[in-house]
Amino acid sequence: MKLATLKNGTPDGRLHIVSRDLTKALAAPGVQTLQQLMEDWEGLSPALISLYDQLNSGALSDAILFDPAQAMAPLPRAWQWLDGSAFDSHGDLMDMVLGVKKEKSGRPLMYQGVSNRFLAPQETAHFPSEADDIDFEGEFGVITDQVPLGISAEAAIGHIRLLVQINDWSLRRLAPIEMRTGFGWVQAKPLCSMAPVAVTPDELGSRWRDGRVDLNLVVHWNDKQFGAANGYAMSCGFHDLVAHAAYSRELAAGTVIGSGTVSNSNYREVGSSCIAERRGIEIIDEGKPKTTFMRYGDTVRMEARLPDGAVLFGAIEQTVAKA
Amino acid sequence: MKLATLKNGTPDGRLHIVSRDLTKALAAPGVQTLQQLMEDWEGLSPALISLYDQLNSGALSDAILFDPAQAMAPLPRAWQWLDGSAFDSHGDLMDMVLGVKKEKSGRPLMYQGVSNRFLAPQETAHFPSEADDIDFEGEFGVITDQVPLGISAEAAIGHIRLLVQINDWSLRRLAPIEMRTGFGWVQAKPLCSMAPVAVTPDELGSRWRDGRVDLNLVVHWNDKQFGAANGYAMSCGFHDLVAHAAYSRELAAGTVIGSGTVSNSNYREVGSSCIAERRGIEIIDEGKPKTTFMRYGDTVRMEARLPDGAVLFGAIEQTVAKA
Repeated sequence: MKLATLKNGTPDGRLHIVSRDLTKALAAPGVQTLQQLMEDWEGLSPALISLYDQLNSGALSDAILFDPAQAMAPLPRAWQWLDGSAFDSHGDLMDMVLGVKKEKSGRPLMYQGVSNRFLAPQETAHFPSEADDIDFEGEFGVITDQVPLGISAEAAIGHIRLLVQINDWSLRRLAPIEMRTGFGWVQAKPLCSMAPVAVTPDELGSRWRDGRVDLNLVVHWNDKQFGAANGYAMSCGFHDLVAHAAYSRELAAGTVIGSGTVSNSNYREVGSSCIAERRGIEIIDEGKPKTTFMRYGDTVRMEARLPDGAVLFGAIEQTVAKA
Repeated sequence: MKLATLKNGTPDGRLHIVSRDLTKALAAPGVQTLQQLMEDWEGLSPALISLYDQLNSGALSDAILFDPAQAMAPLPRAWQWLDGSAFDSHGDLMDMVLGVKKEKSGRPLMYQGVSNRFLAPQETAHFPSEADDIDFEGEFGVITDQVPLGISAEAAIGHIRLLVQINDWSLRRLAPIEMRTGFGWVQAKPLCSMAPVAVTPDELGSRWRDGRVDLNLVVHWNDKQFGAANGYAMSCGFHDLVAHAAYSRELAAGTVIGSGTVSNSNYREVGSSCIAERRGIEIIDEGKPKTTFMRYGDTVRMEARLPDGAVLFGAIEQTVAKA
């Protein structure tokens, strides 16, 4: 099933079922918001899945055209956003570019970020200063239903109800300053964005495996392809990230958990999902970084499709501007 | 004005006005929850303040007895909880006890913690293992209305609508492991608790000054006084913490910002607001820590009163148990 939230003037928007090809949408009957659905997935989702099948077969005459410009983030605000950093090649490059040596503990890396609003897929991203080194970060993420404290990774996989595609905006000048305190990031991590459509894992077929999204995330910066790293290279699966997060807290329904920047060890061939990584590669190859960060007016586009080219989450397409 | 949220079977509870002496309560007419009030403080608070005055004068016959055992946290869940660490003597002792040397940047320290639920003032706190070194942390906090991105500290003071008293539960074994990653805490910081009553700053009279709570936070561990540190010693005021948080994000109405563990440089005289600090003092004085962390069945009590002994926030009184 595919779901989107369309603008209706409220912070949570209006939940819609979206056809597999992202051309049609139908307001979800009896469920106003995605948060409501996450709070009773087992009770509410079967009726929506039945409608989804009818929508795909063209049987619903009251369907509307799906316009991603009218979409908010599928979950426009969440009680909790926990972002991992599960791609080792990203971590290694970031240590280099930020000048911070993280201690490797063999445990998943995770921080809690701002979640009271996720930007819409086509919403302009506003920042206080270009001098803060504005960067995008392409990620995959999951949305869970309620997860009990102390859950195992094996049991956690069943609580992953939806997959999403995320742009985790980052201010790189501030990142190492905040990391060195040990407290994690506040100023360095402004609002994130989500692609317009959240999908159930079965929409990926065999490309959802081992709790990982085995798809290339194609990133364009100012219309030039910047990267197409594959999401399968996570050092642990999303189910491990969920279990890690739930060690000492129950996870509220609608918790969003991120993979961290999608990155592959053959980064010279596939490219990167953030600018900072490319700068790390330049440090290795040329002794110093030469690619600069984003300027106001720059655009970024991120989209992961199925191997046959079929659309999945839709695309994130954002412009950067002064706050 | 004093406000509490009483249990009504919903996650947000039912907002009540509480008399200054914490003996009587009245369901807030026209405002179901504290979150609603925070979203329109200027529009909704004047009518409540008028009722508060009548409640204090005994003029309201429909008032009920206020029972703190029926109270949830004043804000039972929040879109955002950002905890500072503004007491230098706490930071210095913690570096010692955790074996982590934080880099001093001259900037406020802050991390984002779990906020989808705050424990009630008398709710049992459940943890996965005693071996995680369970500790309390007595703090003051503020609740803001909506704060625009980029606000100055001077302007931020006016967005501090309510003051609260917080117990920031911590698992000390995990804290340094998570700090060394630079990502901040997830597992080391389970759900926090709040004292039953949130108060407007004017309730403190001259004891709210320079954006700080100039009151002693009296902490008892298993009925023995453990500390009575004063809240004025913050290295920056709450308005500075609000402005720091809002550098690159707008703060949603109902954002909770904490002071960090209340601590004074004359800690040998006044005691501490967490066990880890006492262990730091023992390391200085005796070469190694001797006070152990909490055991299941242990209790903690935290209360700050006005200098004349008048009640203010009410008390946090919690027992520790196995999850």
